[in-house]
Amino acid sequence: MNLSMIRYTLGKVTLIVGMLMLIPCICSVWYQETEGLSYIAVSGSLMLTGFLVSLVKPADTTIYLKEGLVSTSLSWILMSLFGALPMTLTGEIPSYVDSLFEAVSGFTTTGASILSDVEALSHTTLMWRSTTHLIGGMGVLVFLLAVLPTKGGSQVNLMKAESPGPVVGKLVPRLRQTAKILYLIYIGLTLLEALLLICGGYTVFESVNTAFSTAGTGGFGIKNDSLGSFTLYGKWVVSIFMLLFGVNFNFYYFMIMRQFRKGFEMSEVRVYLLIILASTAVVSLNIYNMYQSVGDTVTDSFFQVLSVMTTTGFSTTDFNLWPTTSKFIMFALMFCGACAGSTGGGIKVSRFIIVLKSLKKQMASLLTPKTIKKIQSDGKSVEHDTVRSVNVYFVAFTVIFVISAFIISFEGYDITTTLSSVAATFNNIGPGFNLVGPTCNFGGFTILSKFVFIFDMLAGRLEIFPLLILLHPMLYKSIAASAKNDYIDPIISK
Amino acid sequence: MNLSMIRYTLGKVTLIVGMLMLIPCICSVWYQETEGLSYIAVSGSLMLTGFLVSLVKPADTTIYLKEGLVSTSLSWILMSLFGALPMTLTGEIPSYVDSLFEAVSGFTTTGASILSDVEALSHTTLMWRSTTHLIGGMGVLVFLLAVLPTKGGSQVNLMKAESPGPVVGKLVPRLRQTAKILYLIYIGLTLLEALLLICGGYTVFESVNTAFSTAGTGGFGIKNDSLGSFTLYGKWVVSIFMLLFGVNFNFYYFMIMRQFRKGFEMSEVRVYLLIILASTAVVSLNIYNMYQSVGDTVTDSFFQVLSVMTTTGFSTTDFNLWPTTSKFIMFALMFCGACAGSTGGGIKVSRFIIVLKSLKKQMASLLTPKTIKKIQSDGKSVEHDTVRSVNVYFVAFTVIFVISAFIISFEGYDITTTLSSVAATFNNIGPGFNLVGPTCNFGGFTILSKFVFIFDMLAGRLEIFPLLILLHPMLYKSIAASAKNDYIDPIISK
Repeated sequence: MNLSMIRYTLGKVTLIVGMLMLIPCICSVWYQETEGLSYIAVSGSLMLTGFLVSLVKPADTTIYLKEGLVSTSLSWILMSLFGALPMTLTGEIPSYVDSLFEAVSGFTTTGASILSDVEALSHTTLMWRSTTHLIGGMGVLVFLLAVLPTKGGSQVNLMKAESPGPVVGKLVPRLRQTAKILYLIYIGLTLLEALLLICGGYTVFESVNTAFSTAGTGGFGIKNDSLGSFTLYGKWVVSIFMLLFGVNFNFYYFMIMRQFRKGFEMSEVRVYLLIILASTAVVSLNIYNMYQSVGDTVTDSFFQVLSVMTTTGFSTTDFNLWPTTSKFIMFALMFCGACAGSTGGGIKVSRFIIVLKSLKKQMASLLTPKTIKKIQSDGKSVEHDTVRSVNVYFVAFTVIFVISAFIISFEGYDITTTLSSVAATFNNIGPGFNLVGPTCNFGGFTILSKFVFIFDMLAGRLEIFPLLILLHPMLYKSIAASAKNDYIDPIISK
Repeated sequence: MNLSMIRYTLGKVTLIVGMLMLIPCICSVWYQETEGLSYIAVSGSLMLTGFLVSLVKPADTTIYLKEGLVSTSLSWILMSLFGALPMTLTGEIPSYVDSLFEAVSGFTTTGASILSDVEALSHTTLMWRSTTHLIGGMGVLVFLLAVLPTKGGSQVNLMKAESPGPVVGKLVPRLRQTAKILYLIYIGLTLLEALLLICGGYTVFESVNTAFSTAGTGGFGIKNDSLGSFTLYGKWVVSIFMLLFGVNFNFYYFMIMRQFRKGFEMSEVRVYLLIILASTAVVSLNIYNMYQSVGDTVTDSFFQVLSVMTTTGFSTTDFNLWPTTSKFIMFALMFCGACAGSTGGGIKVSRFIIVLKSLKKQMASLLTPKTIKKIQSDGKSVEHDTVRSVNVYFVAFTVIFVISAFIISFEGYDITTTLSSVAATFNNIGPGFNLVGPTCNFGGFTILSKFVFIFDMLAGRLEIFPLLILLHPMLYKSIAASAKNDYIDPIISK
């Protein structure tokens, strides 16, 4: 284990989080809110600590998969612990566990809240909540890779551990360039959405917050009714951008590079669009008699389908009141999730494509046993290792889901609330059904349940394994061995 | 495709079903019920048809995997179509679709009913319902293998297609002997249970019906309150036998052969017992305050855990009224199912063991990437093919589950009813939650929904692929090719 490099990475992440906390600080100056003082204090401390810890660069900068996974999970845990601090210090969320829930929900772009009245929050804290979505959407380590000079290429393991999806590839040979391209597209789309909302008559504050929240497919709103009071224009702008942020970002790269064919051949993007269209159609037909006009029906259907499928979690209407078929579709979409390589959560469309292809292959091999074929995707054959890891992902997902739901069941709520609260947090969506529906919040759960949700949100965002590995005894044996034998940290050795 | 051999197998199955229908006929003579006439008429017609169709034995008796799958699914469809006839002819279940539901529920050992008042049925029909459980539990093709002389050994493909579990092995080198041993254990245990119930003061009729129903892990009762009015003795006898019929029958073979060590080393049996004990303990603690005494609490917990886990579906109490944690455990157990190679349904313990081991292996390989290990089970390494087919099984299960629930959602019932009705039929259990709970029935669903349940029950019992393959276009190409070129049926060629 290269413990030095883990230390260095964690230091840099702390530094970056401290710097990004300046965004709400600027906001507090603008609105002249005293809450800003807490943010400035925490931001300063984080920057100083981060700077000192990452001052000495390790001689060996190699990051193997193991180090990548551990750095990633520890980074996210630290980010959350630090990100929760100012919300408690301002007194707006008195309980630190509640603040931690809110911070984890922000960074993991879940958007579930323990607050019943978000309108009571200061502009500063609202801005910080949206900023956590922005940071969490593309990932802090990918950001780190974009700004840090990288050598040797082993740092791709950081990106592999943080980026969602079964296969993570570099767009261009140089990792730093890839990370930069991804962030440029990300920021570009975010600014465009903010601009379009401003043009629609929304305040700069509301537009920026909504854009940050959409970008990360997060879902924190600044109003108690989420986007319920948005105009038709506003709803459609946000819908379109939810759709865009749920697309695999490689698609945009291909578009920018004028490789249109490569882009449109991405089966994941086509299936993603198909699911959205089909679901919107069925939901529209199903809820039509609850609405006055076709326009309103389609607007709300399209919006809610996208909100759940991209795991954003905004709401314009309470889908808890919809008929069973529409509710069932929402429940199924909760697990489906968006594209790999997007900012959305959930299991991801590409994983479903891979397992469905393995089913098709198995059927064919029952009928003609001698044909051994590899699964094909986008013209390339999918490695057995990828198929296996996708299968194992489903297993790990199920295990964590069942254990979580079992613990949550002690709350004594109904089965639908129990299952959907876990589904909504684990898949980084936000709202579920019944007691955790779009008009409700997670404030009423016990501390134990909140920690389960915190674990689930992190596990969902980091796709389970980085977090699960922290619980594996073999890791600690390996760390102990490194600490004893070959590990010489430049800070410690001085 | 060896169409001749499929024809021959179907003929024999028809003959056997006709013969087994004599059991309710005997019952009708004893009770002097005119309903027996319908049964005798159908029984006679089936025996005659079956005899004629299977009169000419094919020259080539080879059955490849493909023929095994097709013969099995067609046999089960025919059995159900024929088995439903007398119930409609007697006028007791006027709608043929309802009778078909009841027959499929019987043969697949689901035990779900469309009847609200089973006590209104004649003894004859009650006996037939229990008999379908007995036939379905071990399987009609395994029975066929036990009574027919087999040559060449390719008929193991019939057994593979019908017997539940990821790996189906022969106990002894000769297939016919294996099938005989399985049936002898099966009948032996059934008679023992009936005897013990008779000793407990139950009538011969009630004892035999209950024993048949337990043996197949079916769940049809002859009382409207299922086993609610059973004595403590009766409940424990049935509990113990549900437990026994949920065990992999290889275990009994090892016990009989005095290979005790081999038996007790079967990890599936140990995990199965562990799950039962743990679930009973948690449910007992959870429902304790609803009961007067520890004895009653444990009796009902143990009974209901076994009833759901072995997919029998008897009930002594309405677990719909239990607290959330217990309901959640029941819901999870619905999917778990019993051991492979038992008469129970569900996904099977051994499949869960295999996927959990693949998760463990993946975790280890993330930490030490160079170790490539095969999964070990009971001292033997599990073939990659088995792991793959288990994974694909979960995929197929999920696909069918989601599509079924989607169609059922159009009924407009709540989400819990929708999901649990599919879970209860697909896993061959019987009762679910809310509107399909232990005190309710499936009578209120539309015809479309009933056909979905019929498909699910068959798919659950035959473990999906035999049924799914009937829908595959490649099968019909293969049949067309056989019919044109190399297929010469002795009946047709005469």
